[in-house]
Amino acid sequence: MANLEEIPFKRIGIISAGSLGSMMSLDLAEKGYCVSIWDVNSGNTRGVLEKAQQTGPVKKKIECFYNIKSFAESFGNERKLLRLSISHGLPVDEVLGMLSSNKALKEGDVVLDGGNKHYRATESRRRSLKDKGVSWIGMGVSGAYQSARRGPSLSPGGDEAAVRLVLPVIEHFAAKIESKDGLKQACVEYIGPGGAGHFVKMVHNGIEEGMLGIICEAWGLMAKGLEMDEDQIGQVFEQWNKNGELKRTYLLQTGSEICHKHKTPSGDNKGEGRGEHGLVLNDILDKVVQDDDDTEGTGYWSVMEAADRHVSAPTIAAAQFLRVAIGNRAAPQPRKFDMNEEERGIFVCDLHRGVYARILASYCQGLDLIARASSDEGWRVDLVTCIRIWRSGCIIRCDQIADMLEPILMQELAAALHDNIDPLKRVVLDGVQWDAYVPTLSASLEYLKYEGGVMLLTQFMEAEMDLFGAHSFDHPGVEGEDPGKTGKGSHHYEWKPARTSRDSGMSRGFAFM
Amino acid sequence: MANLEEIPFKRIGIISAGSLGSMMSLDLAEKGYCVSIWDVNSGNTRGVLEKAQQTGPVKKKIECFYNIKSFAESFGNERKLLRLSISHGLPVDEVLGMLSSNKALKEGDVVLDGGNKHYRATESRRRSLKDKGVSWIGMGVSGAYQSARRGPSLSPGGDEAAVRLVLPVIEHFAAKIESKDGLKQACVEYIGPGGAGHFVKMVHNGIEEGMLGIICEAWGLMAKGLEMDEDQIGQVFEQWNKNGELKRTYLLQTGSEICHKHKTPSGDNKGEGRGEHGLVLNDILDKVVQDDDDTEGTGYWSVMEAADRHVSAPTIAAAQFLRVAIGNRAAPQPRKFDMNEEERGIFVCDLHRGVYARILASYCQGLDLIARASSDEGWRVDLVTCIRIWRSGCIIRCDQIADMLEPILMQELAAALHDNIDPLKRVVLDGVQWDAYVPTLSASLEYLKYEGGVMLLTQFMEAEMDLFGAHSFDHPGVEGEDPGKTGKGSHHYEWKPARTSRDSGMSRGFAFM
Repeated sequence: MANLEEIPFKRIGIISAGSLGSMMSLDLAEKGYCVSIWDVNSGNTRGVLEKAQQTGPVKKKIECFYNIKSFAESFGNERKLLRLSISHGLPVDEVLGMLSSNKALKEGDVVLDGGNKHYRATESRRRSLKDKGVSWIGMGVSGAYQSARRGPSLSPGGDEAAVRLVLPVIEHFAAKIESKDGLKQACVEYIGPGGAGHFVKMVHNGIEEGMLGIICEAWGLMAKGLEMDEDQIGQVFEQWNKNGELKRTYLLQTGSEICHKHKTPSGDNKGEGRGEHGLVLNDILDKVVQDDDDTEGTGYWSVMEAADRHVSAPTIAAAQFLRVAIGNRAAPQPRKFDMNEEERGIFVCDLHRGVYARILASYCQGLDLIARASSDEGWRVDLVTCIRIWRSGCIIRCDQIADMLEPILMQELAAALHDNIDPLKRVVLDGVQWDAYVPTLSASLEYLKYEGGVMLLTQFMEAEMDLFGAHSFDHPGVEGEDPGKTGKGSHHYEWKPARTSRDSGMSRGFAFM
Repeated sequence: MANLEEIPFKRIGIISAGSLGSMMSLDLAEKGYCVSIWDVNSGNTRGVLEKAQQTGPVKKKIECFYNIKSFAESFGNERKLLRLSISHGLPVDEVLGMLSSNKALKEGDVVLDGGNKHYRATESRRRSLKDKGVSWIGMGVSGAYQSARRGPSLSPGGDEAAVRLVLPVIEHFAAKIESKDGLKQACVEYIGPGGAGHFVKMVHNGIEEGMLGIICEAWGLMAKGLEMDEDQIGQVFEQWNKNGELKRTYLLQTGSEICHKHKTPSGDNKGEGRGEHGLVLNDILDKVVQDDDDTEGTGYWSVMEAADRHVSAPTIAAAQFLRVAIGNRAAPQPRKFDMNEEERGIFVCDLHRGVYARILASYCQGLDLIARASSDEGWRVDLVTCIRIWRSGCIIRCDQIADMLEPILMQELAAALHDNIDPLKRVVLDGVQWDAYVPTLSASLEYLKYEGGVMLLTQFMEAEMDLFGAHSFDHPGVEGEDPGKTGKGSHHYEWKPARTSRDSGMSRGFAFM
């Protein structure tokens, strides 16, 4: 990491003094930076000030402001780095307007936007500030309050020179991993131009939704199907996290903690927990709050981008569509599996490898989407970098999978996926048999099958469309057609005359089905 | 239908003289209208002229123009109706610019855009012309060259008064259905304001993709799994189309025709077919041309809209993701089912009811999406109208399903869906067992299960997110929380301290996972 002397920013501005902002402020001050803080909510600013005053030497480095004008003035004529962290749905443009009207943005300044923003919005903000000589960096921050311990995984994108300028500052905050030769590396790297950083963060969240869906279904299969108690399920998750294909998978570790967590007055934030010593899990409604109140866009944006860019991402979509489902009709409820001890043992083994294959599928779909967008947009995002920065700090971290994915090419995944289709298939069969919920699981199985298929059954679909709409098709096994060029097929078959009167022969090119 | 005298347009302009445009021109002339035709491609215009000259009396009614200025002048000062039919991806705005610069659009004029346009584009065109007093109607045209026989299903949306004005003209072209009291009704009705017409058409195409995926998988199960020959499969489709839950389903009828269709020189458009008397189907590559060359947006737009509006549409998404999949890796290929005669018979019966349940699921997802958009946008689209106009002309028509859906409320679907879950489940089990491709099938099964569930396993997902990101949750079974308000949950559990140092207690509200 760089020395403070090499860093071109003496004072750093923190806008939005929430939990992350205040944590960063204190840490930056500890590391020798001068910090100016401003928040629309003056209560937040006051909170940081109070904390800073308890910390002795650091407090001199921190200045808190209750109006944006004096905040802007605190930088004098120095080049500054501003760190914004305002969530999706909140008015970044309003804050930007306040900064502009107070002349707080000058040539050479760098703004680091760490919220979950749509990459197109990031690109348009970047463009609008470029003329003023201000660099706008859209940075994915994968981490949440639990990563305060280790720091988040960061994916900054935008003007490369500007990103390189701030890297020494943000490396301090990033999660660290130890490389094979014992060196500590920060989970942050320049991702690409434009909105590439926020795009990668969006996909990270898509993969996360896939993984959450998968682990959720695994819990459901064990809890409802095998009627295992949460202690036992927690042990299974712990075991999976310790060894084998899913070694060190963060969501399994936390999944295990959730299974073991009994209520205590101290954990219960407002002391309003129901019952004594029960499992916290049993107090949780199935409504996915993030989607319900629409405070978080990244998951469904991933599905939209996959659809828009014609990338097959059924695992991620299945998980998203499960999240927004509202169960309201009568269907068979999941039943206990009628299995003997040996069968139960085999089922849990299969489930382990099945969960592995599905998480791999989720990663593949996400990486495919990044690769496609990178090629569409000319970003040149390095997939290995993505895998590396997701190794720590963020919720999708999974060492074993990263170890496998980092050195190999995507195509070489085939063997790993192939070896795990059978157990996944057996889990789907048992799950479907006993009416368990297995949407992401079965979507992943189908994905693995058709991604591996050669002649897909879409052949019949093509026939239907050619018959109805004269959509045309290509021939299989004919050079130049299979796989062939992108575009309209070379052949149309006149399955039946579309109109017997004067209009016959006018059939081509009318395709509005 | 209205008399010609009541119609306020004496002359109708047809822009784009492709197959539909020329068909309409001739029909309009036959019905007594004067028609002016212009096309960017003068070859098209010439084609219509030649056809018109063969038709005797009609030819006097048709005027063809090779430049837009004289086309515009042909209307004199009369109020005019212009009919545009330019597909997705082609420059509607360019044509619009040419019309404007030739002063071809005057107050009171109505433009009917029958291409597959994104509803947002339609809305912005509508707004931009409103100041000039020109009405822009975005009309879905569900039909293709095969519907030339019966006419397409039409869904016009925009300014209601303008739509009502053109209804008498377009009713002539719409497909007709016979109501129970023997009256003929046209498959066209005012849908709603803004882009509602194009939105409904988009969803129609989403449902179509779902249905195509479903029937495709059914064909695959019979062809690859049961090793039935196409003649037998064609008979099954015919049978299903004749009686029972899928009575009069257009895609089954055409599916049956496809199964029976052997090559003849006359059907083969360019005479280049390979082999003699073979099935046309065997000449068709699995690449879905429409998605490959991106000439058609409506299918993936439906997936994007469903994701954006938080509507669960896994059947449609599964079909879309199958269409864009490129099989390129090694996976187990579908095998022949090891079944005796009796089991094969049961399988085909189950498949019938399974296909029915899945098509219902596809319809439900589409109608849910329309209902959500209608409520979001204030369109007041009537779902029964949608079902009615889809009864003829379009590719998704399915009388039995329309008969069932039209009179009942969505909630009452429960029983119909419920009764068919078991056969669908048995088909999924067999399909998965023998490595068949069943993506839309299994997605639909899971959809039917979780839409019918009460307490979903997303409970575990909520726990994971609260642990990592303090996302908060609601309690099950507590009034005001279950089902409760939209928004952030009322509870957070402090599963484990996020940071032991000075920052404990700063954990809330930091949610960037």
